[in-house]
Amino acid sequence: MVKLIVAYGVPEDPAAFDQHYAEKHVPLAEKIPNVERFEAAKVLGTADGSPAPYHLIAELWFDSAEVLQASLRSPEGQAAAADVGTFATGGATLMIAQI
Amino acid sequence: MVKLIVAYGVPEDPAAFDQHYAEKHVPLAEKIPNVERFEAAKVLGTADGSPAPYHLIAELWFDSAEVLQASLRSPEGQAAAADVGTFATGGATLMIAQI
Repeated sequence: MVKLIVAYGVPEDPAAFDQHYAEKHVPLAEKIPNVERFEAAKVLGTADGSPAPYHLIAELWFDSAEVLQASLRSPEGQAAAADVGTFATGGATLMIAQI
Repeated sequence: MVKLIVAYGVPEDPAAFDQHYAEKHVPLAEKIPNVERFEAAKVLGTADGSPAPYHLIAELWFDSAEVLQASLRSPEGQAAAADVGTFATGGATLMIAQI
């Protein structure tokens, strides 16, 4: 199994980010095909109290890297990816990881 | 629910890291009390082909932030945390996130 990890940097306006994320982005992400599991986690802090490098980390699990790539290339995947650019003012790091 | 995210930077010797992680660290992590779910994912790369900032990302899910903190303070939590310093030559960022 593999997952797509989307690590969002700290945005300029966290409240606006959160609103867009919940109301606009999650519905788009939920349309991506073949997602076995989806989880978004808001970073509360770090264990040693240093500033957290990310505001939110979302993960999408897929059966294989091939399925993940095909899903990201789908119209729904492209729509979700395009939306990231509209609200992720702190940047977004997209990683693919093998479980 | 909350999770502890342990993001390991790229180590000096990835093969040695992987061996220590599998043979020594995972058994220690599995002894931490009250872990509802544990997942370790090896970062294969980034979506845009840029170098991945992490080698491996592990996550431990707990019922609450209070349970997470108590588990990390337990002897088993302290033993796992101390072990990180022995093999994470690329550093480790520990984040607490709310789901």
